[in-house]
Parts: sequence; C-alpha cells; structure tokens
Amino acid sequence: MKKIGLAIHGGAGTIRRSTMSRILEKEYIKGLKNSLVAGWKVISKGGSSLDAVCESVVILENNPLFNAGKGSVFTNEGKNEMDAAIMDGRNLESGAIAGVMGIKNPILLAKEIMQKSEFAFLSGNGAEKFAKKMKLQSENEKYFFTQKRWEQLQKAKKSGKAFLDHTDFDKNLKNKYYGTVGAVALDQHGNLAAATSTGGMTNKMFGRIGDSPLNGIGNYANNKTAAISCTGSGEYFIKLTVAFRISALMEYKKLSLKKAVEQVILKELVKINGDGGVIAIDNKGNINLTFNSEGMYRGSMNDSETFIGIY
Amino acid sequence: MKKIGLAIHGGAGTIRRSTMSRILEKEYIKGLKNSLVAGWKVISKGGSSLDAVCESVVILENNPLFNAGKGSVFTNEGKNEMDAAIMDGRNLESGAIAGVMGIKNPILLAKEIMQKSEFAFLSGNGAEKFAKKMKLQSENEKYFFTQKRWEQLQKAKKSGKAFLDHTDFDKNLKNKYYGTVGAVALDQHGNLAAATSTGGMTNKMFGRIGDSPLNGIGNYANNKTAAISCTGSGEYFIKLTVAFRISALMEYKKLSLKKAVEQVILKELVKINGDGGVIAIDNKGNINLTFNSEGMYRGSMNDSETFIGIY
Repeated sequence: MKKIGLAIHGGAGTIRRSTMSRILEKEYIKGLKNSLVAGWKVISKGGSSLDAVCESVVILENNPLFNAGKGSVFTNEGKNEMDAAIMDGRNLESGAIAGVMGIKNPILLAKEIMQKSEFAFLSGNGAEKFAKKMKLQSENEKYFFTQKRWEQLQKAKKSGKAFLDHTDFDKNLKNKYYGTVGAVALDQHGNLAAATSTGGMTNKMFGRIGDSPLNGIGNYANNKTAAISCTGSGEYFIKLTVAFRISALMEYKKLSLKKAVEQVILKELVKINGDGGVIAIDNKGNINLTFNSEGMYRGSMNDSETFIGIY
Repeated sequence: MKKIGLAIHGGAGTIRRSTMSRILEKEYIKGLKNSLVAGWKVISKGGSSLDAVCESVVILENNPLFNAGKGSVFTNEGKNEMDAAIMDGRNLESGAIAGVMGIKNPILLAKEIMQKSEFAFLSGNGAEKFAKKMKLQSENEKYFFTQKRWEQLQKAKKSGKAFLDHTDFDKNLKNKYYGTVGAVALDQHGNLAAATSTGGMTNKMFGRIGDSPLNGIGNYANNKTAAISCTGSGEYFIKLTVAFRISALMEYKKLSLKKAVEQVILKELVKINGDGGVIAIDNKGNINLTFNSEGMYRGSMNDSETFIGIY
C-alpha cells in the first residue's frame, strides 16, 4: 500500500508555555486531535486527500478556539469576515473566497467554487450569493459571536491597531499571533490537496485580504511536488509567494521538501522580518511542520506516527 | 548609461485584422502609443520604473477603448468593479485592490496601498474607504458609463454568460477577449516594476476575482529576474501561478526570460487550454511580448526601438 499522510495547523505566533493555562492547552490539543482524526478517517479508508483536508478544516472551523469559521475574529465594524482556499494537486484546480459572512464552513464554499463553477476566486456578497445557490449551510451573527473575540476587538479598538491575533495579544504589540487553520494530505492514489481557512485580523479595516485565500501564496497543492498551507504575517507571505515558491524550489531546483521549506521559512522569510510557518507534505509522504515564530498549533499523522505540538 | 525599457499591453484574445475597422485600429494604436510615450518620459529622464508603469497604465485607464478605469465593463448588476495590482522589484513590496468602484485610476490606489499602508491587498467598500482617506480622485457612475460596454452587458445577459471580453464577442463564444491593461519597466537604476489594471468580466457575477489583482499570479516584479504583467483567461493563469512561475524558472532553473515566458505561455498554458499572454522585461532590459491568442494589444520601447502591435 502506498504511503498516506496528513498534517494540520491552527495558527502560529508568540505562543509560550509560560503564559498558557493547562486547561487551555488541553483544549487546544483536543481540538487538533479531533481534526487529525477526522481527516485520517477519510484517507485511511482509501478516500481522497481533498475530502480529508476538508474534514480536518471543518472540525477546526467549528471549534471556537481557532480563528476560522465559528471562532472568527471581529472586523473593525464588528463583523466576522472569512477567507478560505482549497487546491487539488491532481489538476491544479483551486477555489477561494475572501470577505465572506454567514457561511458556517468557508472551506466547503471554496470547494464548491472549485468543483462547480468556472471561477477560482469569489468575494464578498457575490460569494455569499453563490453559497446560497449551492445551498451551503449558513449561520446568523449569533453563531459567530464569541465573547473572547468581542473583547479582543474592544482592546484592539482602544489601541487603534489591527491584529492578526486569534488568541490574545500583548499590549505593546511585541507578541504576534496569526489565526489561521489549515490541512494538507496525501492519499493512497498519490493525490495531494491543501486547504486553508481564516477569520482574518481582529479590528480588520479596509477589506484587507491576507495570504490565506490566495492559492499559490498561502495555500498550494501540486502532485509533482507538495501540498502546503501557510499561517503568519500575510503581507510578508505575499511578498515571497511562499507556497508556490516552496513548490518551485522542489520542481525547478530539485530541493527536498525539507530544504525548500527551510530555505523559505527559516531564511528568506526571516530575512524580511516575516513570521509564521507552514505545514507541508510531499508526494512521497514526507511531512514538514516548520515555523520561525515561538509556537504553531500543529499536528500530523501517518501510518507510523501521530504528532501534536504547540510550542 | 544603463539600459532602460518599457512594455505595455491592452488585453489579448481573438483579435483579427479581418474584423477590425481601420478607424478603430488607428485609435488602438494611438492609445497604445500615448501610453508608451507617457511611461517613456519618466524613465528616459531618470525617473523610476514604478512611476513609469503608473503613468503608462493611467493613460490606458483613462482611455475608454480599454477595459480598465473609464472603459471598464459592467458586472451583472450594472456596476463597474475594478481590480489592479502593482509591484516594486526592488523590495518585492506590492499593492492590490479587488472589486473597487468609483476610483478614477485604480492603479494609483494600488500604489498608495503599497506605499502608505501596512497591507498588500484591499477589497470592495473597504478599499474605497482607504482611497477616500488617501484623497484619491473619485468619479461618479456617469464617468464610467460607455454605451458600447452597456450594450455588451445586455448581449451577455441575453446569452446568460459572463464574458472576459472588452471589445466585442462572438455569439457562439468561440471568440474570447481578455480586457486588461498593464505595463512593465526597467529604469536606469536597475529597478523593475509591474502594474496591471482591469474592469474584469462583462456580466461578472458572484464577486469574481481574476488573476489581475493577484501579485505573483497576474503581476510580478523582482529585480533578480523580471517584471511581468499578464492578460488572459484568469482562472488558468491562477492554476499556473503564471507571473511568479516565469520568475522562478529564471531564478531557480536559470532560464532566459524568453525561454521562461515561452515555456509557460506557449507550452504549459496551452496544454491546459488557457489563453492570453504576457508582457515582460528582465533586469538586463530584454523585452518579451508573448501570447498564444490571435492578438494582443501591445507595445514596447527602449533606446533603439519602438514597437506597437495588435495581431
């Protein structure tokens, strides 16, 4: 049987053991585990990597701990605007959304766009109309309300800054957190897929779009190389076209996944003061979870090993 | 003195001499020439490639013949929603907008975002708010109304299809046109820049975002390699991460600009049935204008040669 594998993340940033309560730590680990198990169920039974990454991301989107779906942060106007992207490594088809409200699982909308429209990227009200046409599950504002996120918005407004944070943030802005969720998988048919979803920045203004919904930048999958999902300071990931750059280093410079990821995340991204990380899996099943921040909520699973980590 | 150069485009597609009137042909050539002259004025006097590409694109945005700025096509809802992207090859900084209404010159808004905000990509109302804050020139709906575009929308609505067309379209959809404008330049300081602007698709639905505002896909500049602006079937350009792929082939596989462009546009894009073209200039001043469609409104200028072409 061919090698299969799955990796997930729930965001990266200044996550320290010293400031994390043991109860919260347990909840994060449980959330990551549930997501891994859901994706694994699909690929271990011969299902597709595409379905697996959707299952894993849906679990994270439904968990208020993570900044995506239900747990999405609030914009400056007190709204929950979500972005998501999915890509199929078999044929390079992709689907993405930006600035979408009221959709329970943005990743499923991105998948519908990829599979059932002639488009690759829809935004705002238009994307919501398409979701309605496709009969995707919607939720009202109350569903997306979480007290913690609301308080984060009030703090952010006082300080006059927009935050990428999805957990908590430092008053002096020394600590940064990037709230995103993502999954990458290789199935037994040799197909790779990547999915990324986010609620964006707390106190987000001006309809900002980060790297998460940009296939080729925050999310990428290509059977020739690897599947990659990013989390971090979006604008810096855009600068480096991070996800496709990793793939290009593998395809054109013949670097291994590990070397390609490390060159981009630990060297090039660090050089321009960008922070965050990626989860990636190549077409041989090698998994890589690399970040240059203090922590990244992450997990991986294959036939021989299950791993969950935070710091 | 170092080599300088400039190239522009006004869209690609099924453009045939046999169906073009001589008067219209002259108007297109005049429009392209005015754009070239405006950009050339900047770099020939020692100005920056960034200012040159803005000047060239502004001229095209102000010309109702081209699908960008004033000449933007209508969405399904009868609106003019515009996308634009700009990138600075010196530092890989970029700015972009999607789904923006009422801004006279979208490329100047993209430039303001790049230079005066911490963001790289703004959308919709949010981007318009930022434009207001930056005091960019706005125009009312009347300014963007052109009879030809309005009639195109009515035709498109009747056929129930969305069109990428910016000039005219075939009833049987055998003919495709991609309305975009763009400019790339190399200045005497060795700096590259790229700018792309579009009014999108006639009868556009669901807030569709194409490749034009996606830096790394429809627009890219890197002093290490080249500056590139794309025009064509956006979803296919997204599949291949076209602009950055050309740059990656140069950086990682050491291909020349010509070989890199030809591999992506004449081989890989053709293979997946994508059509359109690119204008590109590398850091040595080599200019490349390649398309796999029947025509591309295009022009280029350097110290030794001025070229304008349609078919």
